[in-house]
Amino acid sequence: MSTIDLNSDIGESFGRWELGDDKAMLDLVTSANIACGFHAGDPSTIARTARWSVERRVRIGAQVAYRDLAGFGRRFIDASRTELTDDIVYQIGGLQALAGATGGRVTYVKPHGALYNTAVHHEEHAQAVVDAIVSVDPDLALLGLPGSRLLALGEQRGLRVVREAFADRGYTPEATLVSRKESGAVLHDAAAVARRVLQMVTGGTVEAVDGSVVTVDVDSVCVHGDSPSAVEMARTVRDLLTSEGVDLEAFT
Amino acid sequence: MSTIDLNSDIGESFGRWELGDDKAMLDLVTSANIACGFHAGDPSTIARTARWSVERRVRIGAQVAYRDLAGFGRRFIDASRTELTDDIVYQIGGLQALAGATGGRVTYVKPHGALYNTAVHHEEHAQAVVDAIVSVDPDLALLGLPGSRLLALGEQRGLRVVREAFADRGYTPEATLVSRKESGAVLHDAAAVARRVLQMVTGGTVEAVDGSVVTVDVDSVCVHGDSPSAVEMARTVRDLLTSEGVDLEAFT
Amino acid sequence: MSTIDLNSDIGESFGRWELGDDKAMLDLVTSANIACGFHAGDPSTIARTARWSVERRVRIGAQVAYRDLAGFGRRFIDASRTELTDDIVYQIGGLQALAGATGGRVTYVKPHGALYNTAVHHEEHAQAVVDAIVSVDPDLALLGLPGSRLLALGEQRGLRVVREAFADRGYTPEATLVSRKESGAVLHDAAAVARRVLQMVTGGTVEAVDGSVVTVDVDSVCVHGDSPSAVEMARTVRDLLTSEGVDLEAFT
Amino acid sequence: MSTIDLNSDIGESFGRWELGDDKAMLDLVTSANIACGFHAGDPSTIARTARWSVERRVRIGAQVAYRDLAGFGRRFIDASRTELTDDIVYQIGGLQALAGATGGRVTYVKPHGALYNTAVHHEEHAQAVVDAIVSVDPDLALLGLPGSRLLALGEQRGLRVVREAFADRGYTPEATLVSRKESGAVLHDAAAVARRVLQMVTGGTVEAVDGSVVTVDVDSVCVHGDSPSAVEMARTVRDLLTSEGVDLEAFT
Repeated sequence: MSTIDLNSDIGESFGRWELGDDKAMLDLVTSANIACGFHAGDPSTIARTARWSVERRVRIGAQVAYRDLAGFGRRFIDASRTELTDDIVYQIGGLQALAGATGGRVTYVKPHGALYNTAVHHEEHAQAVVDAIVSVDPDLALLGLPGSRLLALGEQRGLRVVREAFADRGYTPEATLVSRKESGAVLHDAAAVARRVLQMVTGGTVEAVDGSVVTVDVDSVCVHGDSPSAVEMARTVRDLLTSEGVDLEAFT
Repeated sequence: MSTIDLNSDIGESFGRWELGDDKAMLDLVTSANIACGFHAGDPSTIARTARWSVERRVRIGAQVAYRDLAGFGRRFIDASRTELTDDIVYQIGGLQALAGATGGRVTYVKPHGALYNTAVHHEEHAQAVVDAIVSVDPDLALLGLPGSRLLALGEQRGLRVVREAFADRGYTPEATLVSRKESGAVLHDAAAVARRVLQMVTGGTVEAVDGSVVTVDVDSVCVHGDSPSAVEMARTVRDLLTSEGVDLEAFT
Repeated sequence: MSTIDLNSDIGESFGRWELGDDKAMLDLVTSANIACGFHAGDPSTIARTARWSVERRVRIGAQVAYRDLAGFGRRFIDASRTELTDDIVYQIGGLQALAGATGGRVTYVKPHGALYNTAVHHEEHAQAVVDAIVSVDPDLALLGLPGSRLLALGEQRGLRVVREAFADRGYTPEATLVSRKESGAVLHDAAAVARRVLQMVTGGTVEAVDGSVVTVDVDSVCVHGDSPSAVEMARTVRDLLTSEGVDLEAFT
Repeated sequence: MSTIDLNSDIGESFGRWELGDDKAMLDLVTSANIACGFHAGDPSTIARTARWSVERRVRIGAQVAYRDLAGFGRRFIDASRTELTDDIVYQIGGLQALAGATGGRVTYVKPHGALYNTAVHHEEHAQAVVDAIVSVDPDLALLGLPGSRLLALGEQRGLRVVREAFADRGYTPEATLVSRKESGAVLHDAAAVARRVLQMVTGGTVEAVDGSVVTVDVDSVCVHGDSPSAVEMARTVRDLLTSEGVDLEAFT
């Protein structure tokens, strides 16, 4: 019997601006990537979502990002390794304190947006993420893309790495993500997405955009939280997995 | 024989902008109020000053502030108690992680600028500071003005409070600080300031602006760090104190 | 026959975060208070909403605010008169350039949120708003609350002042707004709100919370844009006014 | 007889943080690249430096940048062409209003830091700078590096372009700047720098790092303003130029 973790980006509101239905998503996922204030997530939003996560026994992770509220962390910023490391340590610390205040605990780190994509191949920025984790708490797990420099460096440095697949993203024949600039990058049919996730989890494969079948190693599946139909899709995925006997629980 | 703590604001640079001579001040003081990013102190500045503090065995405190880079935390912001609490928890957490990464530890909290002045009398904001400390770590000491609502509330909630005096500020006959808008608010003669501090520490009194002598309870003396002559004044104070047999060490 | 202006806050999104249905509101109002970047409104949001306003021949105003993205400009900030003046000049200028690039023109200024409320009674901040307008372009009209210090000072300095009433806010017997902390502050029944606006415009009176009838001088009526039912309420107001023969057009 | 413009970055303070001696530099240069708030320059700093520029009849230019206070605009940010254009329009507008309020006028645009370097070769970002200028005011001149994509695109679009040389930077045999990561990137001897500028202006050549002599086309020479010895170097350059009969005046 299989077990899988479902993770989602949570706490991406900022002050007056709300994004996503965090409470509904927290009822569905097992791990919450909580924004840490640099791309989204003011401290009160963080506090609130940490409390909701604790109440639902959802695992809390630090969704760390470039310092870029205006760009929502989706733009590469050519930071030095040192300043990026320090920025990430600060973000993790801010979340740790707010999560701790509500009885929770940060147990993993996942880079957000442009930092996630950059750390797939950018040596210095991948190192910065790993440096930050090692210096804050080497017991924090690192969530990232299988095959990325980030996970390779994390493993080298002795971190627990968690390999992530994306429920609603197209894959290339090389098992990387189809760029958002190309067609087939994002899937919208909830039922098809759910079957796809089931195949990833139980079969270890996914159908690529060219129809070929590729192997995916997956410890956690990311379901998006900020699109209008996000909650519905997450629920469909969750329902199919549980009805097929897959246990949903946070990676341990 | 007397013992006293000397504290100073440290780490108030931000990115390209440098403020004060932190290394020189850290050679003179026993406690460093490190800016936490909301009024000053980007993460790399915090990391650097935390490391310098650890190297010199200077005690590290969180200098928490309103979110106001443009105003350097010197402007009152009418935040709600909850949002202010969360902002402060986040700041303490950011510093804790960066200090921890360098082998240091945050042991106290001191509000900065407008928050310091507001917490003297503003019930909600004083409570927010105390709420934040209690929820992060009730063993953190609280540095503030004797007679303030802040220290009163801190004591009620069981916090260790540290009563602070200011080396270079004028006092009223009621033992409060002369407003910066009035004459006599700031003293500039280093030798006179040093003698004044000696009298506070060994005699427990200070001469007020009207010439009367008032009692001051003091566990820690604040020496300013950002004026051109700050280092010189701090050195003069330190030298006189040690030559008169006063032990300089962080409050315990 | 009567003529009235309908104004609404527009362009209050920021980067990834969307707020309100600006296009729908711009189909209904005659004046758009466009956020200028300090409480909301990144430059691309400003550019987009300015273009939509020009396309619909909706008058463009600068919705200026305290520098406070995290608080959405809803928190008083104790800025000096000079720094507030300069902040407002900068905001007006940013909007002027973006509006101009799309063929539009800024013709009035309306303070937002806490600045709006503060300028009702706070001499220095009311002066700062007026100073800013005078120094940028004395032909800019000033939108504000009848009886406020802001409008009084604006008139003294020779500005064209536009007296504003609020469609969905409760009034005191003194013709001021009921505080949002008290009951009766906000009205939710679209039909009742529409009748109320009609009475303001054609009768010059409004029923206060205590049932008394008070006089209101009104050149422009503010309909809110950021609540879920905002568009519906604005449409109901507009429809009733036009069906009763009131001309909707921007103040001139 | 020759005429040359001396330009310098001005107004790069931010709130409490001061950078450079703007008044002293404004006594020496003929064009002031005033920071516009995105990498430095709060509105009150802008207002002050604009006023000082007007008093000294120094030409005012908009020093536009990526939105990056923490990085002082020195880090590439992968903004879209549209968002960068809008950011630049906003910055120019903010400066126009503040300069206008003090009787001044913005007459040119110069990108700052990473945007300057990026626009040398990055098609989209070079276009964004040109798009912004064209949409605000096509009479604004464009200051940039000879041979850059930025100036080429500016010329294509009909802008007045001003070719800039750097007083204290090393040149490659290809007449580009030596990277700051290599030796010879920055020159520190004021007298040597002054002779170098004289040769650029009167001879149209500069000695490259390898000793070869290369041609430079120059309408304006940039003297840096933020290093400790900046004022001294600028004065030495100015004194040598005037003593050799070179007229210092802003490009027209």
